[in-house]
Formats: sequence, C-alpha cells, structure tokens
Amino acid sequence: MSTLTSVPDALARARDVVHPAMVAAVERLNPELRRIAAYHLGWCDENGTPSARTGGKGVRPALAVLSAEAAGADAGDGVPGAVAVELVHNFSLLHDDVIDGDRERRHRPTVWALYGVGPAVLVGDALVALGHQILLERGPAGAAASEELTDAVAAMIGGQADDMAFEGRVDVTAAECLAMVAGKTGALLSCSAAIGAVLAGAPAAVVESLRRYGAHLGVAFQAVDDILGIWGDPERTGKPRGNDLSTRKKSLPVVFALDAGERRGAGELRRLLLNGPLDADAVARATELVDGTGARQATEALARDHLAAACSSLERAGLAGVACAELADLARFVVEREF
Amino acid sequence: MSTLTSVPDALARARDVVHPAMVAAVERLNPELRRIAAYHLGWCDENGTPSARTGGKGVRPALAVLSAEAAGADAGDGVPGAVAVELVHNFSLLHDDVIDGDRERRHRPTVWALYGVGPAVLVGDALVALGHQILLERGPAGAAASEELTDAVAAMIGGQADDMAFEGRVDVTAAECLAMVAGKTGALLSCSAAIGAVLAGAPAAVVESLRRYGAHLGVAFQAVDDILGIWGDPERTGKPRGNDLSTRKKSLPVVFALDAGERRGAGELRRLLLNGPLDADAVARATELVDGTGARQATEALARDHLAAACSSLERAGLAGVACAELADLARFVVEREF
Repeated sequence: MSTLTSVPDALARARDVVHPAMVAAVERLNPELRRIAAYHLGWCDENGTPSARTGGKGVRPALAVLSAEAAGADAGDGVPGAVAVELVHNFSLLHDDVIDGDRERRHRPTVWALYGVGPAVLVGDALVALGHQILLERGPAGAAASEELTDAVAAMIGGQADDMAFEGRVDVTAAECLAMVAGKTGALLSCSAAIGAVLAGAPAAVVESLRRYGAHLGVAFQAVDDILGIWGDPERTGKPRGNDLSTRKKSLPVVFALDAGERRGAGELRRLLLNGPLDADAVARATELVDGTGARQATEALARDHLAAACSSLERAGLAGVACAELADLARFVVEREF
Repeated sequence: MSTLTSVPDALARARDVVHPAMVAAVERLNPELRRIAAYHLGWCDENGTPSARTGGKGVRPALAVLSAEAAGADAGDGVPGAVAVELVHNFSLLHDDVIDGDRERRHRPTVWALYGVGPAVLVGDALVALGHQILLERGPAGAAASEELTDAVAAMIGGQADDMAFEGRVDVTAAECLAMVAGKTGALLSCSAAIGAVLAGAPAAVVESLRRYGAHLGVAFQAVDDILGIWGDPERTGKPRGNDLSTRKKSLPVVFALDAGERRGAGELRRLLLNGPLDADAVARATELVDGTGARQATEALARDHLAAACSSLERAGLAGVACAELADLARFVVEREF
C-alpha cells in the first residue's frame, strides 16, 4: 500500500468548527468531572495547565460534519452530531482503558492510572449522557440522531464484550471476529458518517449509504489498527510493542493466523495463546508465527477491500460532490495512515 | 416515626406487569453481558442456576407504572419507562459498587468482586443503552421519555461526582449535601415518577407535579438510607455496619453533625474524618459523636418534611385518584421502611 497520505483539509476544517462546541459541551459538566475530561481530551495536563493538543485526529467529528454537507446541509448542522460522537468515542476510550488495564494512551497516563478507576468510570458515563443531551436539544431530528447514537453505543458495547470473551479463547473464527469488529469499531464510525445527514433531515437512502460507508470504513480502520497493534512502532502508536499479543487479543491478524492450519504454525501459536498473558519472548515468537502465516497480508487485503467498499457506497446515493470526495479522501487517509 | 408499614400492593402489581418486559429486555443483550446482568438482577446465581428473587424492591418501576395510571393511562403504557428506569438504576448500582469498592450487595458478592471491574463497567454501560433503546422504539413520546431519562442520568452522575469529591472534605455544607442528594438519588426517582405520564402524553403540569413528587421522595429516601448507613442492622441493610462512616461519606447526618458547632463534638468528628479511612473503633466513636449532636433526629425530620412535600405535590395537579393514593402510600412505605 502507499505511504502516509497528507492529512486531509477536512480534518482541520472540522476541528475548527467543532472544537468550540466541544469546549462549550464539556463546560456543562460538574467541575470535578470537567477537569478530568479536559485532561483526557488533551486540553490540559494533570495540574490543569493548558497544554498543546495531544488529542486524537478527530476522524469521527470530521465524518459527522462531512455527513451533513454530503446531505446538502451546512457544516454547522452536523456539529451537534460531531460533538456527540466525539464524546461517545472518548467515553469508550476511558472505559476501554479500565477494562483492558492500559496505563498509557497517547504517551500520557490514562485517566484511571492517574485519577483512579472510579473517576474514569464516572467521567465516561458523564460523556455519554452529555452527548445525548446535546442531540436531544435539537428537536425531532436530534431525537432521531440520539436514536442512531444509542444503537451505535449498544452495538459498540456488544462488540467490546465479545472482544473480552475472545481473549480466553483460541477457536475464534474470522466471521466471529469480523462481527465483533463491526460492533466495536464499525458501529460508531457508521453512526458518525450518518449522523450529520440525520440531523439535516436527509432522505433514508442517503442516510443508509452513509451508514454503509462508515461501517466499511470501520472494518478497514480496525484492520489497520490491528496491524499496528502487532507490528506498529511504539513511538507512533503510543502503546507498548506487541501489546495486543501479550494480552491475547483476538485481533484480525491473529484470527487469520489461527485459521491458517497446523503446518503453518497455527498449532504452536494456539499453544502460546492458551497459556495466560505472554512475556516478551513469547510475544516475539508469536509475532514470527503470525507473520509466517501471511496473516499480515490477509489483513491488509481486508483493509483494502473494505476501503473500496466504503468509497463505492458513496457513489450510489445522491450525495453532494465536494463532501463526497472529501469523505473518500478521509477514508483513504485513515486506512493508509501507516503503511 | 411509625414502624414498618405493610408492603403496598402497587409494588407487587407493578412487578407482575414489568418483570416479563425486563426479562425480554435483558434477553436482547450480548450473551456474555446477559449472564452477568441476570446475576446482578438476582435472577440466577453465579453458575447461572435460577435463584429465588434477591433483587430490589422495584420502587422505581412501580413509580413509572403508577405515573402512567396517575395520568389516566393504562399501567402498560408505563412499562417501557419502568424497564428503562430499572435498567438505569441497575447501571448506577453496578458502577457505584466499582467506584465505592463495595464487595457486597444484598448479601451477595457484587459483580466487580465476582467477575472483575471490566465486566461490571461494561454491563452497566450496556444497561443504559438498552434502557434508551426501549424508550426510543416508542415514537415521539418515547423520545421525550428518553430525554427525561438522559437528563436524570446526567444529574445522577453529577451527584455521584460530588459525593466522591466530598469524601476528602470536612467543610461540606448542608446545602451542598442536599444538592448532591437531589442529583444522586432525587433525579432518577423524579424521572421514574414522571416517565409514565410522559409516555402517556400527559399535560406538562401533570408531568411537572409528578417530577416534584419524585424529587422530594428522593431526598426523603436518601435521608432514610443515610440513617441506615450509620445505625442500620447489617442483616437488613446487606452492608457492613458503619460502612458510610468508615469511607468518610458526607451523608446527611454527618453533614448535620459537622454543622452542629464545636461544643457538641463537631470538632472531634472533623478530626476523625480528616485522617483517612476509619477503623472500627473510630467508626464507633464517630457514631457516638454524630448521635450526640442530634443529627439523627434532624435527618429524620428532613425525611418527614420531604415526604409531606412529596404527598402535597400530588394534590395540586389533576391526577387520577387511585394511582395518586397509591403513589402517596408508596412514598410512605419507602420512607417509613425502617424506623
């Protein structure tokens, strides 16, 4: 695949329009929660001192803004949706770090590691409620957007539950893994890509094609993330090397490798993954084994196919041209970010 | 105050109509989450063996059902609201047990103690999303109910955040404590009392008087809970004796005692509460000190006043007679349950 493409203008443009609304939203939280949320979002350090942005790329809010524009509305019409999906995304990061026991994110201590599990849980809870409040203040279209978001959250939680359950198993099939990914990652990206159009009152066919675009993008995105989780440079991913293998996550490359049959090392990999958390040597050996099965190439091919499917969904409904091209660019950027 | 009144018929009647809908709702969860939710709800033991009901009294679902009836609708119209508030109540129990580190509830291990923090967090998250899904399937009235619930959840989380922040302080005022209680306990009871009427499309004045009834009931309920948290019989409360004092919770009696002035022992109490978690001796001494200030009587008086205010709110709007009387009965039952 090609090297990292340039950052799409749409990300910067969306940040400019969404950031003030994010700040205003977080301002509504209880002061204790607000301080922790601001730390988590990278707006300040642990002493409350404003810091250079260390937050995420803002893919989900950009999708929400482009979603409104693709439906022929103004960027501003997508902003409540952008804020809501970004809040929900951060809820899931906060809770996932607790669930996975991850102590570091984006080169900083995670909220539970710094403030304790209780505050991390509670701030996450607060961000979901706030996201819904912001949508529900927008009349019937906001209620429809809130319903879209609720379904996404439910699917995301189901996917996360499967992901946890898979850690103790070595017989996870590719189909099970893809269904898990569709929930864990696809649901919120699908919702992000549709929510602006929902807020703009777009026809059902437009909303549905945007949902499909986001769902495919989600699978492609997770495939890339799973590759980085095994082979990524810790300096760039902000996570320890081999993190996914040491915790026995059944990520896409691992499941493809386990599927590859005994003669290609799947048997040895299975035995390694059966014996509790992996130490550094075991991680190195497991990485070799996964590599040897061609699972990395299979995962890259999966990412490529779903990227193509995402772009193809955009062509089918009557979407506004410029936004549509930007959505395709954004998808390519997200998928091609690291390889 | 009088001794325990008989259990109102409304609780049993509501349980009969709500329980099948609760079962159907939980059935929609991911299998991993469903199993844990069923344990938490007291429907089965940790091996999945069905067990005699050990769940709560079902006050919130009963309020939701009576709320629909008080607005002149059928009990059934309140059922989605009853299910939603019961799911959200159980979300808050699951997360609060994590936050407070409580290992036991209703004489059984809490979910985090049995299954781990991750599953407890995730099941809680799933119950909130499920509650909203169930409401949002009911058209515009369901969307209004979902908004009512969202605001309640946001207020509940804010109250819980204050409650946590208060643990490290000894200068919490009665006004701050009452505002915390209004969020932590009042918001969901207020929502429960109004949500049936919202689903029934009742006039704003009816909804508002039910909200006020529930908000007052919430303060009265918490006052009783706080008394039990210090003086309650562990056999009946299902929690260790003196739990609230050992964790330095700023419950209503403690805040009243701290307010009582130095000559009545407030100074010594303040010093005890400043020095980290209290051991058994310190809890015994703190209990004596709180007792000596008359804070228990003050908290009982507060409960009585808010019970009266709750019943009085019922008289002002044009509510259906029988349901209205049952709401008043239910309030008396909840407040007079233990003293």
